Amino acid sequence: MKKLRFVTLLLSIIAILSTSVAHAGTNQALVELLKALEENGTISKDVYELVVEVANQGETNQAKAIVAKEDVKKMIQEEVKVVAKKQAKDQPKITMKDKFVVESGDGDFSLRVGGRIQADAAAYSEDIRRQNDGTEMRRARLFVQGKFWDAWKYKLQYDFVNTGSAGIADAYLQYAGMPWKVTVGHFKQPFSLQNMTSSKYITFTERGLPHLFTPGRAIGVGAGRSGNNWSLNAGIFGEGIDAASGDEDEGFALTGRASYAPILNKQQHLHLGSSLSYRNSGSNDTLTFRDRPESHVTNVREVNTGSINADSNLRAVAELAYTYGPFSLQGEYYYVDIDRDSATLSDLDFSGYYAEGSWFLTDDMRNYSGRKGSYGKIKPGSVVGKGGLGAWQLAMRFSSVDLNDADIAGGEEQNFSLGMNWFATNNIRMSANYVKVLDVKGGAGDGDEPEAFQVRAQAEF
Amino acid sequence: MKKLRFVTLLLSIIAILSTSVAHAGTNQALVELLKALEENGTISKDVYELVVEVANQGETNQAKAIVAKEDVKKMIQEEVKVVAKKQAKDQPKITMKDKFVVESGDGDFSLRVGGRIQADAAAYSEDIRRQNDGTEMRRARLFVQGKFWDAWKYKLQYDFVNTGSAGIADAYLQYAGMPWKVTVGHFKQPFSLQNMTSSKYITFTERGLPHLFTPGRAIGVGAGRSGNNWSLNAGIFGEGIDAASGDEDEGFALTGRASYAPILNKQQHLHLGSSLSYRNSGSNDTLTFRDRPESHVTNVREVNTGSINADSNLRAVAELAYTYGPFSLQGEYYYVDIDRDSATLSDLDFSGYYAEGSWFLTDDMRNYSGRKGSYGKIKPGSVVGKGGLGAWQLAMRFSSVDLNDADIAGGEEQNFSLGMNWFATNNIRMSANYVKVLDVKGGAGDGDEPEAFQVRAQAEF
Amino acid sequence: MKKLRFVTLLLSIIAILSTSVAHAGTNQALVELLKALEENGTISKDVYELVVEVANQGETNQAKAIVAKEDVKKMIQEEVKVVAKKQAKDQPKITMKDKFVVESGDGDFSLRVGGRIQADAAAYSEDIRRQNDGTEMRRARLFVQGKFWDAWKYKLQYDFVNTGSAGIADAYLQYAGMPWKVTVGHFKQPFSLQNMTSSKYITFTERGLPHLFTPGRAIGVGAGRSGNNWSLNAGIFGEGIDAASGDEDEGFALTGRASYAPILNKQQHLHLGSSLSYRNSGSNDTLTFRDRPESHVTNVREVNTGSINADSNLRAVAELAYTYGPFSLQGEYYYVDIDRDSATLSDLDFSGYYAEGSWFLTDDMRNYSGRKGSYGKIKPGSVVGKGGLGAWQLAMRFSSVDLNDADIAGGEEQNFSLGMNWFATNNIRMSANYVKVLDVKGGAGDGDEPEAFQVRAQAEF
Repeated sequence: MKKLRFVTLLLSIIAILSTSVAHAGTNQALVELLKALEENGTISKDVYELVVEVANQGETNQAKAIVAKEDVKKMIQEEVKVVAKKQAKDQPKITMKDKFVVESGDGDFSLRVGGRIQADAAAYSEDIRRQNDGTEMRRARLFVQGKFWDAWKYKLQYDFVNTGSAGIADAYLQYAGMPWKVTVGHFKQPFSLQNMTSSKYITFTERGLPHLFTPGRAIGVGAGRSGNNWSLNAGIFGEGIDAASGDEDEGFALTGRASYAPILNKQQHLHLGSSLSYRNSGSNDTLTFRDRPESHVTNVREVNTGSINADSNLRAVAELAYTYGPFSLQGEYYYVDIDRDSATLSDLDFSGYYAEGSWFLTDDMRNYSGRKGSYGKIKPGSVVGKGGLGAWQLAMRFSSVDLNDADIAGGEEQNFSLGMNWFATNNIRMSANYVKVLDVKGGAGDGDEPEAFQVRAQAEF
Repeated sequence: MKKLRFVTLLLSIIAILSTSVAHAGTNQALVELLKALEENGTISKDVYELVVEVANQGETNQAKAIVAKEDVKKMIQEEVKVVAKKQAKDQPKITMKDKFVVESGDGDFSLRVGGRIQADAAAYSEDIRRQNDGTEMRRARLFVQGKFWDAWKYKLQYDFVNTGSAGIADAYLQYAGMPWKVTVGHFKQPFSLQNMTSSKYITFTERGLPHLFTPGRAIGVGAGRSGNNWSLNAGIFGEGIDAASGDEDEGFALTGRASYAPILNKQQHLHLGSSLSYRNSGSNDTLTFRDRPESHVTNVREVNTGSINADSNLRAVAELAYTYGPFSLQGEYYYVDIDRDSATLSDLDFSGYYAEGSWFLTDDMRNYSGRKGSYGKIKPGSVVGKGGLGAWQLAMRFSSVDLNDADIAGGEEQNFSLGMNWFATNNIRMSANYVKVLDVKGGAGDGDEPEAFQVRAQAEF
Repeated sequence: MKKLRFVTLLLSIIAILSTSVAHAGTNQALVELLKALEENGTISKDVYELVVEVANQGETNQAKAIVAKEDVKKMIQEEVKVVAKKQAKDQPKITMKDKFVVESGDGDFSLRVGGRIQADAAAYSEDIRRQNDGTEMRRARLFVQGKFWDAWKYKLQYDFVNTGSAGIADAYLQYAGMPWKVTVGHFKQPFSLQNMTSSKYITFTERGLPHLFTPGRAIGVGAGRSGNNWSLNAGIFGEGIDAASGDEDEGFALTGRASYAPILNKQQHLHLGSSLSYRNSGSNDTLTFRDRPESHVTNVREVNTGSINADSNLRAVAELAYTYGPFSLQGEYYYVDIDRDSATLSDLDFSGYYAEGSWFLTDDMRNYSGRKGSYGKIKPGSVVGKGGLGAWQLAMRFSSVDLNDADIAGGEEQNFSLGMNWFATNNIRMSANYVKVLDVKGGAGDGDEPEAFQVRAQAEF
């Protein structure tokens, strides 16, 4: 019985030591009681140690329980994080900075709404011909683009400064589920560096003179493939949406472009590119090459071939650009050969080129895309309105085009331009351009040497 | 005292058994001790069982406590779900699949942005008259629609291939807070099955020939009511937005349509419909019926009444369609009676009809809406780009129109068409059509029997 | 030993009392056992009380533990709230009521998509000249506006009822990071109260006759500053986007407006305003003042100066408006002075004015903005479709314009109008107008006194 009593006592003590959270004081007292019992021989040392050990285990378990309770908050936070992450994966993600994009949680679907506003004003120092000072909404575009099931993409873009279908810039769908992306609809024929660079991102307000040789957007089918520093694009195209549709067949064009960047890193990039476009005119098609003097407010075209009957024509361009930090050089050479719709009239050869240099005063750099083989959005290092100065860029360009050949006196023109750009934010840009027509030889503008002073306010959204 | 000792022992055991989570081993040992005590008669069987029962209750309670702690995670998950559900109710819901819709949590407000792109190319095998091969942007539409307070809806849709106000497709508001929904603005006059079926969902790239009899969208007021398998729509309409507005009064039209589907289930549906439109021309109005040969790239109209002076006209159509799984038949008969603005000139009667059959090669089916009495979006069972083939459909059509009556020689035309559609996803469709003009009798196109080969790429968003 | 036994017993009881949550019954029994032991002297009263006290402490602790477990739910809810709030701050906020706006969590970026639909029908009681009854889509506009980095704003708005660039309403960008906000692009020249009040919010379907003197939207640069009850706006403008661009210089305008509201509270507001616009015409510019009789469906202009050659012109307007609860009065006086492009032709002075009164039958009030110096959206106190009646307003207007001066016989016209507006919701408005041309003196409409009955359905989104 004595043994039983001891066992009962020890069990009682263990029970108390190992369970009650609130009895730290009691526990301490009991441990000391046990110690006294051991010391006076009522229990052996072995029994004492065993009991204390068991009791300690109990305390540890209790401590664990306490921690668990206090950790509920942490558990909640973690759980909420997991749920929030899962929700975020299920719920659409909305991008607001720079552009408005809504993308499904799984990334398979997206919608983007955007556009551009380019408001110009220009004053001309006239020489021979009258130029009209004034203002112009150069572009006012709205677009919606998106994707379905990740692989299928579309874009519809309209320019409200145009009338009717002529305002349709992009209207295409694309299958991007293969290495070669296939595009169908109305889109840019892949041709020339300054053409493939969006009007939002070109260095001057207008592209250089020989841009007049560039085949415009057209309805067609294209295929494109790209790597980090190269791109290949080709397509077969009918005419532009806005082409007059009489009772004549449309003809078609084969247009392709290749770009390669042998140097492409954070500090510098070297762009090499070449584009070719062959067009077989329809039964009775004509061709006109003409352009304003790199300023669009005036309606005067210093060079203008007038309408040329053409069986077919071949256009080619060689592209070169190099950027080193804030400095950039860019140039292209264009060549056009026209096979005329006549046995007696000779072929025509026209050509042109431009070279431009630009320099950021601020710590900024042109934004080259090796995958597209073109320049993209300038993202200034600091933002105006948030304590920054934006990005400031100076630029200079020489451009030349020769539209005189055989019986065609379209004129030959050389221009020199100075430009300044202020990129206030990723979406706001102000530009000022000075263009001096150095000389015009031949054609209606023969000898005319006007100057243009032009400013632009641009918002991109 | 002995009794007291036993009680003490039992209480101790109970205490240990019933409280300490961590002493499963100890508990087992104690239970066996109790059993030994009972077996050697130290405690009675009753006492033993009582103690074990109490101890078991304790263990159960402990188990509950353990579960409770481990259940915190579950509690959190449930609570987070509740909160997320509440948040979802408060926050707008964004739909991305198929279409982009933002809807307020309570469902009272919504906004949808969408549109369509239809890019065509066609080649013609000419007979007598010249047809012009080429490309065309058939439709490039953008729309915004939405609702306020659940009952008020609006839609503004523009087709950029048109010029000016002629491009306004839909521009209306609607009160849907009553069984009869009232619509005001510019919208489709309810007439004919192929007309009420969106151009995105018609079987061929162009509607059948007698569509030329269909009164177009106009500004007016309409009322509509529908059940699961029937619809009634009627309205009074002025002229279309694009109607030339001289100094003449516009006149008006009363147009109505009824549809009923006596069979409507998952496997088959039978559509019966009829539409009527009476127009009282304004003081000096004219009417022209003409159409291209079910291919829109060419500008040639094989049938064309030219301008007819008309006091009034009555148009009627009888509609029939039947779908059984992948198979579908559809046909309509049109009749027009024109009361001319002259005592000496007789009334004119024109008519036309078409019949088409279609068959899905894949396990898909046409999508009939009993509430609208028209066909809607084809949703392929599998998606191209996610391992699927999409939906493939073959179709055949015969159509006929007779615009010869009295002194009017508008021509009579019969066409036969073959079509193939590939619905790659809910939003992407490719179509190829072959149209053979079987015969044209009378009019400018007399005897002309050209063929058209046409393809379309369509994106709907 | 006896003492030991008692201690063991008590410890056992304490252990049980202080730990096991589920043994309330057992506990009660033990407490009563203790009481019996105390009563029969087995334990002293002190010991009894001590044991009960310790046991109670145990129970309290247990109770606390229970509460803690039940509070987990509350903890979770609080934690989830905190997380949800944080998420909300990071995630874009979507507004659906009244208008669709997506704003970034930090408020720096936003995008709004909106527009308006105004569908009209009118019948005329003709007098001398023919007016054409009929329907018209008066406006069908879509816009996108937004901001970047809080300070930079833009808006692009197009009206699809117009053709080409003439449909561009707003296309501007703005820097709002300073007290003087600077706007660049195509926007409203700040002139006159009824002009600065959106066509969605004017009292009648058309602005009063002298609105014909208002210079329209143009491309320019403006600066504006405002306080709670005042506004100052001025700018330099070229011509409107839609101005014909020949080879002539555009000329420019300086236009400014000031508004001040000496009384502006919830019950009443008094608006004083004045606008001035000086335009220096370009080298060969002409000017025409003409207008329809406050109803736009007809094409007849009762007054019309025809084309006037002008070197420059100065326009001025004095504005006055007062609102007291549901009552409102508004009037403006316009004066125009034209300096003609000729030594022999005298200057021309034209003028006009209107005065209108309006009264809400319901408990509603016109919505004046002191910062804009113009009237904004009417927000009816109750919504149709949610059990309300909307807001009902009656209005009356007298307007007059005199375009006769020197050799110019443009005509003098007085109109009287009655109007009724029903604002069903913040976004839906129906209007009915009756216009009586009281008299026309001079010009092509001399003596013509037609009446117009016009209705409009308007949706704003």
